[in-house]
Amino acid sequence: MLPQEYLTLLNSEFELCWAGGDRLLDAICRYAMAPGGKLLRPILLLESAVAAGGRAADVLPAAVGTECGHVASLVHDDIIDGDDTRRGRPAVHREHGRDNAIIAGDALIFFLFRCLSDCRATGVGDDRIVSALRVVAQAGYDMCHGQSLEAEVCGDLSCDTETYLEMIRLKTAAFFRAACQSGAILGGGSAEAVRVLGAYGDHLGAAFQIHDDLLAYDSTPEATGKSAVSDIRNRRLTLPVILAYETGSDADRRTLEDVLRGVQDDTLGEDAAFAAVHGVLERTGALESSRGRARWHSARAREQLAVLPPSPSADRLAHVARLAVTRDR
Amino acid sequence: MLPQEYLTLLNSEFELCWAGGDRLLDAICRYAMAPGGKLLRPILLLESAVAAGGRAADVLPAAVGTECGHVASLVHDDIIDGDDTRRGRPAVHREHGRDNAIIAGDALIFFLFRCLSDCRATGVGDDRIVSALRVVAQAGYDMCHGQSLEAEVCGDLSCDTETYLEMIRLKTAAFFRAACQSGAILGGGSAEAVRVLGAYGDHLGAAFQIHDDLLAYDSTPEATGKSAVSDIRNRRLTLPVILAYETGSDADRRTLEDVLRGVQDDTLGEDAAFAAVHGVLERTGALESSRGRARWHSARAREQLAVLPPSPSADRLAHVARLAVTRDR
Repeated sequence: MLPQEYLTLLNSEFELCWAGGDRLLDAICRYAMAPGGKLLRPILLLESAVAAGGRAADVLPAAVGTECGHVASLVHDDIIDGDDTRRGRPAVHREHGRDNAIIAGDALIFFLFRCLSDCRATGVGDDRIVSALRVVAQAGYDMCHGQSLEAEVCGDLSCDTETYLEMIRLKTAAFFRAACQSGAILGGGSAEAVRVLGAYGDHLGAAFQIHDDLLAYDSTPEATGKSAVSDIRNRRLTLPVILAYETGSDADRRTLEDVLRGVQDDTLGEDAAFAAVHGVLERTGALESSRGRARWHSARAREQLAVLPPSPSADRLAHVARLAVTRDR
Repeated sequence: MLPQEYLTLLNSEFELCWAGGDRLLDAICRYAMAPGGKLLRPILLLESAVAAGGRAADVLPAAVGTECGHVASLVHDDIIDGDDTRRGRPAVHREHGRDNAIIAGDALIFFLFRCLSDCRATGVGDDRIVSALRVVAQAGYDMCHGQSLEAEVCGDLSCDTETYLEMIRLKTAAFFRAACQSGAILGGGSAEAVRVLGAYGDHLGAAFQIHDDLLAYDSTPEATGKSAVSDIRNRRLTLPVILAYETGSDADRRTLEDVLRGVQDDTLGEDAAFAAVHGVLERTGALESSRGRARWHSARAREQLAVLPPSPSADRLAHVARLAVTRDR
């Protein structure tokens, strides 16, 4: 199956999920799942299943589920971060109210697990479903840990690189890992295939998140669809800022502290804040160093795939790992 | 095993779940799960497993999970309803903030499913785990539907009894049903045992919720731990109010409308509001009729059990059904 066919298949599956439902919650879930996302996690799950020797059609319900779990986290994240738009439309909590957004996020998590159980109907053995269940449930819990950790260190410039890497491992990479690993498990892959696809997902997730941190500096708001100053405004720690604070001069550190304080008490304009931070990140080499780390994880991700028998799916997974650190949005 | 031993066992399991965790999320989950709840759902799961021929120890992880799922819904409900206390302590969102409460609720849902997968380690077959997974995931989704429906009809006195019964079936009974049914499945019960224990859970849930609606009138705030006027203040529809509005005179209907309006725009004191509603509910016979419906569901729940072979667990399930409509809190 070609990548474009996967996308078409997935989008029609999403339609079907809530097609019959005429209740408010169905409508909200449909709204939350509406087209526009990258569908990265379900694609990873499908390609991993095939790369491990399975068939995409058998694991399709689980692929749908993994997107539901991801969207659930976005719906709740948007409440937490106070973000008003998502994929160019009002965020769920703006369109349907905070309470409905909380409920819809919960519903999508439960739906993720219903989807997993649907793999019985496509002929996947129960032993594989239970193994995948364990991986996905643990990854979901880890993702929550990551979100909690991110909130804890929010605005704390003395956060070290280790803590940051642990945070993105939990917040982002855990779910990438789970998508790849559960795909391999459900597809009937060998223990070796499950292991390397899990490791691939881990490195891909880290590469993806670090590159995300860099988009504010390496891309444009037009391409990314969000303001370049968004992370600074939300005091969200990113790898280049942490590296700059760790390695910068006293003056650089003071600049970063002043910007965060100025943005918080509204005494510093957003353009000035962005320019000041950008200057420090360039001067300290933190941008270049972050780019290097993203590329390193992308290369490690691709390395894992070498263990698998060559296949178009393995090639496409390698391509995804390259895209993760070259995309502009 | 005696009921008291179940409680002790469950509470020590809850302790163990987050014993090693020193991260903030672990602490919040521990706080949310702290003793004080009735542990009704895990007890139902354990007793159903044993009544269906299984062993309590085998399904213990699933019992722990069902309480996690229930607590998750409480944590998110308290944000939605703006309730500040739970089990005599500050609600999670009051103690740890709204954002952490959203994340902790999500984490507890994922944890529920991790617990389910833990039943593999206690020797439950994968076929039973996948069947239980389906039941629990669907019930969780239904519960969200019920919460959404409740919010939709909030304050709408013209809501009919049918809609109300559908709402409590989804909001409350679905999870009771899932606890009993998944207990029976995991315990290795026959198709018949799984069916009747599911029906038992459905009726028990309805009886439980209708009796809950009546506590404001039939118990005391000291016993229930919440203000008798809480439902009226939150414009939450209850069966006696719906029945009174359906069957009352024009004057009765006007009284109910005036009270809801008066409470909303703060022109009516809470004691006066409560007295006015109570008067209408007595006069129209709505309280007596609601009590009758709660007792009817309790009797239907107990009837289901007659199909099972006699056992102390079946007796205790019957006792729970009686307690559901006689408790004062």
